[in-house]
Amino acid sequence: MSTIAKTPEPPYYAVIFTSLRTEGDNGYSETASNMLMLASEQPGYLGVESAREDLGITVSYWSDLESIRNWKLNIEHQEAQKTGHEKWYSSFKVRISRVERDYGI
Amino acid sequence: MSTIAKTPEPPYYAVIFTSLRTEGDNGYSETASNMLMLASEQPGYLGVESAREDLGITVSYWSDLESIRNWKLNIEHQEAQKTGHEKWYSSFKVRISRVERDYGI
Repeated sequence: MSTIAKTPEPPYYAVIFTSLRTEGDNGYSETASNMLMLASEQPGYLGVESAREDLGITVSYWSDLESIRNWKLNIEHQEAQKTGHEKWYSSFKVRISRVERDYGI
Repeated sequence: MSTIAKTPEPPYYAVIFTSLRTEGDNGYSETASNMLMLASEQPGYLGVESAREDLGITVSYWSDLESIRNWKLNIEHQEAQKTGHEKWYSSFKVRISRVERDYGI
């Protein structure tokens, strides 16, 4: 179960990944779980939040742009991105954003 | 059903609202639906994406910080925020971020 990420004081970065899936699992669940684990081991990783109905939204938080770039270039992640593009997602959008302010309870 | 928002070329802003609900509806669904409608009528509104499992994630997109501020101060929205704080959410986090880059299929 995903919970609210315990991020530090801004500024930090958020990668907002929004996607629509194709039919069937096709190995998606296992890889998704592995990628969440692998991401959490990367330098600069701050946390992740995820939910899916028809639309899936995964927001990962990072300390800086270089950490995001390195994670994008990770070889296992590259393989997952390729399969995602070819098999798992009918459409997706990645938005890289700088968190400037946050508040909550 | 929520779909991937058709946002313009960056830069623009994303408000990432992450929440955990309390038990029961307590008028939440009707107000949430009204707020989505009302938000979409505000100046600077660019779109919204939303999904909930245990965790709920709603990302709204805006052209600039002033539009976000005005929406936060909207009187009906203020009332909803108050009830959200008191009744609907056991915890939440709002992150205001500037989208610097995006890509997708």
